[in-house]
Amino acid sequence: MIRFESDYSEGAHQIILDKLQNTNMEQTPGYGEDSYCEAARGLIAAHLNGCQSDIHFLVGGTQTNLTLIAAALRPHQAVIAAASAHINTHETGAIEATGHKVISINTADGRLTDADIRQTYEDHWQDPTHEHIVQPALVYISQPTECGTIYSLQDLELLSNTCQELDLLLYVDGARLGFALAVQGEVPALADLARLTDAFYIGGTKVGALFGEALVINNQSLKRDFRYIIKQRGGLLAKGRLLGIQFQALFEHGLYFEISQYAVQQALRIKAACQAAGYDFLFDSYTNQQFPILPLDMIEKLQKHFAFHIWQKIDDSRSAVRFCTSWATPSEHVDTLIDHLQGGTYEQG
Amino acid sequence: MIRFESDYSEGAHQIILDKLQNTNMEQTPGYGEDSYCEAARGLIAAHLNGCQSDIHFLVGGTQTNLTLIAAALRPHQAVIAAASAHINTHETGAIEATGHKVISINTADGRLTDADIRQTYEDHWQDPTHEHIVQPALVYISQPTECGTIYSLQDLELLSNTCQELDLLLYVDGARLGFALAVQGEVPALADLARLTDAFYIGGTKVGALFGEALVINNQSLKRDFRYIIKQRGGLLAKGRLLGIQFQALFEHGLYFEISQYAVQQALRIKAACQAAGYDFLFDSYTNQQFPILPLDMIEKLQKHFAFHIWQKIDDSRSAVRFCTSWATPSEHVDTLIDHLQGGTYEQG
Amino acid sequence: MIRFESDYSEGAHQIILDKLQNTNMEQTPGYGEDSYCEAARGLIAAHLNGCQSDIHFLVGGTQTNLTLIAAALRPHQAVIAAASAHINTHETGAIEATGHKVISINTADGRLTDADIRQTYEDHWQDPTHEHIVQPALVYISQPTECGTIYSLQDLELLSNTCQELDLLLYVDGARLGFALAVQGEVPALADLARLTDAFYIGGTKVGALFGEALVINNQSLKRDFRYIIKQRGGLLAKGRLLGIQFQALFEHGLYFEISQYAVQQALRIKAACQAAGYDFLFDSYTNQQFPILPLDMIEKLQKHFAFHIWQKIDDSRSAVRFCTSWATPSEHVDTLIDHLQGGTYEQG
Amino acid sequence: MIRFESDYSEGAHQIILDKLQNTNMEQTPGYGEDSYCEAARGLIAAHLNGCQSDIHFLVGGTQTNLTLIAAALRPHQAVIAAASAHINTHETGAIEATGHKVISINTADGRLTDADIRQTYEDHWQDPTHEHIVQPALVYISQPTECGTIYSLQDLELLSNTCQELDLLLYVDGARLGFALAVQGEVPALADLARLTDAFYIGGTKVGALFGEALVINNQSLKRDFRYIIKQRGGLLAKGRLLGIQFQALFEHGLYFEISQYAVQQALRIKAACQAAGYDFLFDSYTNQQFPILPLDMIEKLQKHFAFHIWQKIDDSRSAVRFCTSWATPSEHVDTLIDHLQGGTYEQG
Repeated sequence: MIRFESDYSEGAHQIILDKLQNTNMEQTPGYGEDSYCEAARGLIAAHLNGCQSDIHFLVGGTQTNLTLIAAALRPHQAVIAAASAHINTHETGAIEATGHKVISINTADGRLTDADIRQTYEDHWQDPTHEHIVQPALVYISQPTECGTIYSLQDLELLSNTCQELDLLLYVDGARLGFALAVQGEVPALADLARLTDAFYIGGTKVGALFGEALVINNQSLKRDFRYIIKQRGGLLAKGRLLGIQFQALFEHGLYFEISQYAVQQALRIKAACQAAGYDFLFDSYTNQQFPILPLDMIEKLQKHFAFHIWQKIDDSRSAVRFCTSWATPSEHVDTLIDHLQGGTYEQG
Repeated sequence: MIRFESDYSEGAHQIILDKLQNTNMEQTPGYGEDSYCEAARGLIAAHLNGCQSDIHFLVGGTQTNLTLIAAALRPHQAVIAAASAHINTHETGAIEATGHKVISINTADGRLTDADIRQTYEDHWQDPTHEHIVQPALVYISQPTECGTIYSLQDLELLSNTCQELDLLLYVDGARLGFALAVQGEVPALADLARLTDAFYIGGTKVGALFGEALVINNQSLKRDFRYIIKQRGGLLAKGRLLGIQFQALFEHGLYFEISQYAVQQALRIKAACQAAGYDFLFDSYTNQQFPILPLDMIEKLQKHFAFHIWQKIDDSRSAVRFCTSWATPSEHVDTLIDHLQGGTYEQG
Repeated sequence: MIRFESDYSEGAHQIILDKLQNTNMEQTPGYGEDSYCEAARGLIAAHLNGCQSDIHFLVGGTQTNLTLIAAALRPHQAVIAAASAHINTHETGAIEATGHKVISINTADGRLTDADIRQTYEDHWQDPTHEHIVQPALVYISQPTECGTIYSLQDLELLSNTCQELDLLLYVDGARLGFALAVQGEVPALADLARLTDAFYIGGTKVGALFGEALVINNQSLKRDFRYIIKQRGGLLAKGRLLGIQFQALFEHGLYFEISQYAVQQALRIKAACQAAGYDFLFDSYTNQQFPILPLDMIEKLQKHFAFHIWQKIDDSRSAVRFCTSWATPSEHVDTLIDHLQGGTYEQG
Repeated sequence: MIRFESDYSEGAHQIILDKLQNTNMEQTPGYGEDSYCEAARGLIAAHLNGCQSDIHFLVGGTQTNLTLIAAALRPHQAVIAAASAHINTHETGAIEATGHKVISINTADGRLTDADIRQTYEDHWQDPTHEHIVQPALVYISQPTECGTIYSLQDLELLSNTCQELDLLLYVDGARLGFALAVQGEVPALADLARLTDAFYIGGTKVGALFGEALVINNQSLKRDFRYIIKQRGGLLAKGRLLGIQFQALFEHGLYFEISQYAVQQALRIKAACQAAGYDFLFDSYTNQQFPILPLDMIEKLQKHFAFHIWQKIDDSRSAVRFCTSWATPSEHVDTLIDHLQGGTYEQG
C-alpha cells in the first residue's frame, strides 16, 4: 500500500534526526531559552527583511492557533474565518474553549475575500444592536488553505490593507506554509507575511519536522507577555531546544524551502497526470494537496494500491479525492500513481 | 408616537407591582429560599402534570441560557441551534464565553426540523475524525421562535423522540413562551414541555414581569448542584423573593395565560388587517410578533406615527417589518395601526 | 423574631417603590439606554468632581465583579485580594470561571495593606520563572470590607499610588459603599474613589434598592466596549430603566447617603452597648456590621429573640457574632437588642 | 560548570533516540492511533494488575494536568491541592484558565494529609452557604511531591479511601513518578496507583524521554470522550507515534525503572554526603531532588563549579538549595560534588 493520505505520516527529515542525535547530551536551559532556539529565531528573522518580529516555537498547530487567538482578543471579540477553516472544523472547538466565537464565511475554495471581510464588518457595525453581537476583531486565513489554494501577494496585500483600515487583526495559519512558498509566481514570501500580517506561523509538523510550529508575531501589541500565555495553555515545551534544533536544521541551509518545493513538484506531476487523463478538479491547487474528481470505478481500483482520502461526493458516478505529497514521498510512488491514473497497466498491479 | 417595537417597553403588570408593594417590608431569607419563591414554584409545578421538575428563577434570558448550557455540557460538546436563534445572534457570544460552540443551522422560519438534527448528528458521528470536531450534545429551540413561528405539539414530540434516540438534550428558550401557549390548536402546554424536554424556561420579562425567567429542569442529571452554577454566573439574585413574588402573581390566577392571550389577540388583529390589505408575510406567525411585508412608501408613512422595526429588505420596493404587541398594548393603539394599514384616512393622523 | 442577619432582608425604600409605580406605564428603550438611566448617571456623575467616568448599572454584585474583571484582564493575569474577599470566598469561583486566579492574601481585618501589594508584586517579578506564574494585575478591595472595616482616605491614597507605580489596576467592591461613606472622619468620598481607583461600584442591593449596582469606570482603557461584555455575561437588564429609576431615586435628594447614615447610627448604638457591657470585638467596625465577641450563654439567650450570624468561635466560652443593620432596621428593634445585651431585664422580653 | 539544576537538561536516553531513528521512515496513522502507541499502552497496562485503564499520551505535564482536570470537573467544582503543588504555583494559572479554582492547603513538606482533605470537605459542606462557595471535587497530589517527598503505600491507601468515602476524585501528577517508584520500602507501585486513584500520569519528560507523559485513567466515568478534550486543548500530537515509540522504549525492558533507580542512587549519595558533613535538610527526600541546608559561604564556593537552585533562605547564614539528578547525571559529577561538599580539597577544583 502506497500512502498519499497525509503529509505527516513519517518521522522527520534525516538532517533533523542527526542534529537531535548530535546535540543530545548537551545541557541547556529549558522552555525555549536555549542557544538552539536563539539560533533558529535568528535564521528565521533573516528572512523577515528587518521586521522586528517575536518568534516563538510551539509543538502543534491547534495549540498555536488557540494560544495566539486567546492572547489577541478581548472576551467579546470574535474571529472571522472561512467555513472550511481548520479552526472552524477540526480543532474540537479549541477557539470557543478560549471563549471566542468563530464567525464562519462560506467560500468557494477556502479563501476569504476582501468583500467577505468588509461585509462581515459592515453587518456588525451597522446593526444598531451590535453590542448584543460578538465583535469581529481578527481575520484568520490559512496559507495554503485547507483546499490547497493560495492567496497571491496581491490578495494578501488587499486583505492586509482592509484589515488595517477596519482595525482588524490579520493572522495566517501556515501549517503547510512551505508548500505555498514553493508555488511559482507572485506569492507572498516570509518577509511579505511579516510586513502584511499581525502574526503568522511557519508549520514544521507537515514540512519535515517531528513536530513544531514557529509563530511569528509582528504586531507590537501582541508581543507582550506572550510566553505566559503559551505556558498557561500547556504549550511551553520543557525541552524547548528540541524545537530550536529542528527549526535551525530547517532554516540553516534552506532545507525548509527545498523539501517544500520537492513535495509540490511531486504533487504537480499528479495534477498534470489527472489533467492529461481529462479529470476535473474540486479546487485549483498548486500546492502539495491535489483534489481531482475521479470516476468511482477508478477510485475503487486505485484503493487496491494506494491510500488516500475520499474528499467529497460529486455525483452518482464521481467523487473528489485528495492526494497529498510531502518531503518523504518517493518519486517512484508518484510514478506508480501516475501510471495507474493513466490507465492501461494498473489491472496487473 | 405609538410603539410596536418590543414587548418589554413598559414596567410590569399592576398586579405584580401591587404585590411587590404589599410585601415590601417583610423580612425574608435571600437567594430564592423564601416562601414566595416556594409558592411560585408550587404554582408552576401544578401545571406540570406531576413531572418532578426543579424550578429556578433567574433575572434574564441570556443569563438563563448561558447558565443552563454551561451546566449541561462537557467541554467538547456543542449546541445545535437555528442560525436565527437568540443564542447565536444576540447574546454577544455568551455561549462561546462558557467554552461551547453553537452549531448553527439555516432554517426557513426559525424552526429546526427533525431532519436538521439527524443530519447534524450523522455528519458528526459518521466522520472518521469526529474526535477533532465538537460533539453535538444539546438542541436549543425557541418557542415561539425569533420569527414568531411555533413548534406544534406533534413537532415537539418528534424532536423529543429524536433527541432521546440520539442521546441529545433538548432545551427550550421560552422568553416569549406565554405567546406560544396562547396559540389556538395543538400547541404544547407546560405539561408537554415538562414531559418532552430536558429543560425549558418560562419567560417573565416579556410577559408582564419587571424581569425574571422561570427555568424548569426536568432531566434528573441536570438538577444536581444547579444553584452553584447560577451563583457562579452571577445569576443568583440576593433579594430572590422579587422573582418569587412576580411569578406567584403571574401564576396565581392565570394572569400569565390571560395577558399572553390578550397580546396575541391584538397581534392577530394586525395580521388580519395586513392580510385584508393584501400584504404578504415574511413568516407565518400566530404569536405576538407579526412580520408583514410592506411597500416602502407605506413604511415611511407609518413611521410618522408608529415605532417598529424594519426587519429585512425584500426587494427595491418592499421590506418586512415587525410589529410587536404585549400585555401593555392598548387596544386603541392597534385600532389606529389598522386604520393606517388599511389606507385612506391615515394622512390626516 | 427580630432580624439582624443581613442588610437585604426587605424589599426597597418606599421612595423607590413609588417611583417604579409612577413610571410603570411609560415606554422606554431597553438595555440601559433610557432617560432614567441617563438621569441617574448624571446624578452620580455630579459627585465625581469632574472625573469623566463611565457609569453602568448592573443587577448584582457578583455579576459586577466578574464582568469588570473579565473585561480588565488578559488571560494570564490575576487578581490580588484579601483571603476574606467576597470574590475569594462567596462567589462560587465566579472569577476563576472567567479564567483568572485570585491571589489571596491573609489579613488581620479584611484590609489589604500597601506592604501586601508590594510583596505580592515583588514575589512575582523577582522570581526568574515568573512567566510560569500568574501575573498580578488588578488589586481588588472592598469598601467597607467584609469585616466591616474601612480604608481611610490616606489608606486609599497610598494604595492608589502604589498601584499606579506598579502598573496595577485598583478596583473597589462597594456592595456596602454607602455605609463607608457614612463613617465620620477622613474617609474617601465618591470623588476620591473616582480619582484614586480604576473602577468601583456603588452598591444598591444592600442600601435601599430592590437590586442594582452602579459601576463607575474611571480608567479610560477599561471603558471601551464595556457594554458588550455586560451583555455577554448576562448582565444587561432588558428593562434597564428599572436600574436607572432606582439610582435616580437614591441620588436625587441624597437618599443614598441619608439611609446609609441611619443604618450606621443604629449599628454604632449596638457597638456602644457592647462596649459598655465590656465585650470585645472581632473587628473594629464603624459601619453597619458589628462583630462583638459574646459569651455562649448570652448568645443562646439572644437567639430566643433575635436572628443573627455566629461568625467565628473564639474559645470554649465565647464566639464572635455579627449584627447587621440597614435602612429598614427600626430603631425600636435596636432598643430591644441593647436592652438584652445589657442584661438584667432581657429574660422578660 | 557541572549542572545539578534540573532533570530535563539533556535530550533523551540513547535507546529512545535509536528507536526514533529506526522507525523514522515508516508511515503510520496520526494522533496516537498507530501501532507504537498501541504497543506502549500494552506495555504499561501489563504493570496495572488487570485494571482496565485507558492510557493516553500527551506532550507535557501542564497540558496533561489541565486536560484531565478540565475533563473531570463540572464548572462549579474545584481542585484541592497543596499550596506548593505545581498546578498552584508554576502553570501560569492553567487550571483557572479552564474555569476552576485551586483550593490551596499549606503543608509542611508538599504532602496533603487525610486530615487536610477531610477538613476542606467539612468546611465546605458544613457551611450553610456552600452553594456560594466552590465545591471541592478533585484531590491533586504529586508523587513525588515538588519537595522530593513521597506518599507511602499506606498514605495513598488512606487518601484513596477518604476520597472514595467523600466522593472526591483522586489524581496523581507523576511528572517524576519514576523516582518515587525507585524508593526503597512500601511505596505504591503502578498497579497500586491504578487501583487507588481515578487517574495518574507517568512522566516521561523528566525520566529519559525527549518529551511525553502517559496519562492513565482508571475511573470509568472519566474515560468517555477523553480524546476530544485532548484535541480541544491542543494536546493531540499529529505524529502521535513519537510518544508511543518513546514509551515503548521506556517500558520494553524496564528502562524507565532502571534509569529512575540510577538517578535516585546518585541523589542518595549526595544526601549521605550532606548528612556526613552535618548539614540539615529542608525536606526529607528519598528521591532525585535533595534539599540540604548549607552555609552561605559553602554555597558561594560550590557555585564556582556547580549550577543548582537556591531554594529558600533559612537564616542569615544558611539557605536551602536543591540538587537534582537524572538518568543523565554522570557518576563522576556526583563524585566531584561530594568531594566539594566534604570540604578539604575543593579550593583546588
